[in-house]
Amino acid sequence: MKQKMLEDLFLDTLKDIYYAERKIVRALPKMMKAAQSEELRTALDTHRQETEVQIERLQQVFELLGKRAQGKTCPAIDGIVEEGEEIMETMKGLPALDAGLVAAAQAVEHYEMARYGTLARWAEMLGMTEAADLLKQTLAEETATDEALTSLADAGINERAMQAEAA
Amino acid sequence: MKQKMLEDLFLDTLKDIYYAERKIVRALPKMMKAAQSEELRTALDTHRQETEVQIERLQQVFELLGKRAQGKTCPAIDGIVEEGEEIMETMKGLPALDAGLVAAAQAVEHYEMARYGTLARWAEMLGMTEAADLLKQTLAEETATDEALTSLADAGINERAMQAEAA
Repeated sequence: MKQKMLEDLFLDTLKDIYYAERKIVRALPKMMKAAQSEELRTALDTHRQETEVQIERLQQVFELLGKRAQGKTCPAIDGIVEEGEEIMETMKGLPALDAGLVAAAQAVEHYEMARYGTLARWAEMLGMTEAADLLKQTLAEETATDEALTSLADAGINERAMQAEAA
Repeated sequence: MKQKMLEDLFLDTLKDIYYAERKIVRALPKMMKAAQSEELRTALDTHRQETEVQIERLQQVFELLGKRAQGKTCPAIDGIVEEGEEIMETMKGLPALDAGLVAAAQAVEHYEMARYGTLARWAEMLGMTEAADLLKQTLAEETATDEALTSLADAGINERAMQAEAA
């Protein structure tokens, strides 16, 4: 039996996040369409464009490993996206929808932050400096997106959900 | 049709994380049993005890809302725990297992950080100061656990997975 070692674990986790990113890039246009505020739509669109670059970075990491870029079903992101879809269905057209969309997007960001944090550390351990740099670039972007979403919520989205509450 | 507003969204998300925490408290003993290093076992046990207190805090928040504490299936945590179980199965007894367990536990922590961050902000918006404080206490613990896991990985767990790599 082949020993599952750190390099195998790295490759498996890379396939997991590759599947996740490709799922996210398909989910974002649906979230943009559902968003009620222009600011949230713009933020989601910016993240969609970033995600396309992040997918290319993952393809570069696969190349550095000498492996074909390949996804592996990731039940975690499937579940996170499913919860986002549920919010879009049950809150369609309602004033608090954007607050729900921000929450869903932040769950996605946190999943990515966990995975890229792990992958970047493992790449360093494996002496893959170039891969580690690529993974750290994406980690920084995901962290920034999460912070931008918090600012957006604080800047009016939660407030609007509240005004609807009082109405 | 009842409008889904911020308070409904808050209650739904509270049920989501209540389900998640109760799932985690059951998953942690299995992870502890699988862990190879004493340090990781201890860290997971500390987190299990913390999780029990976090569940009590959620029950207090339900009480503050005047609602019965109740979970709601959370496909996100189901997926995250499923990925952890897969690691325990495929890497059983192997040297890099602990590195995989740390990664799985950090995915759990990040999911919780996303949810508690959102819930604490919404509680503030809703004027529920006491609930916000309880949620922020847990958020701080989850963040600290995530950092402790990173330190643990850096302090030897990833190194041991690497030594196995060279062997």
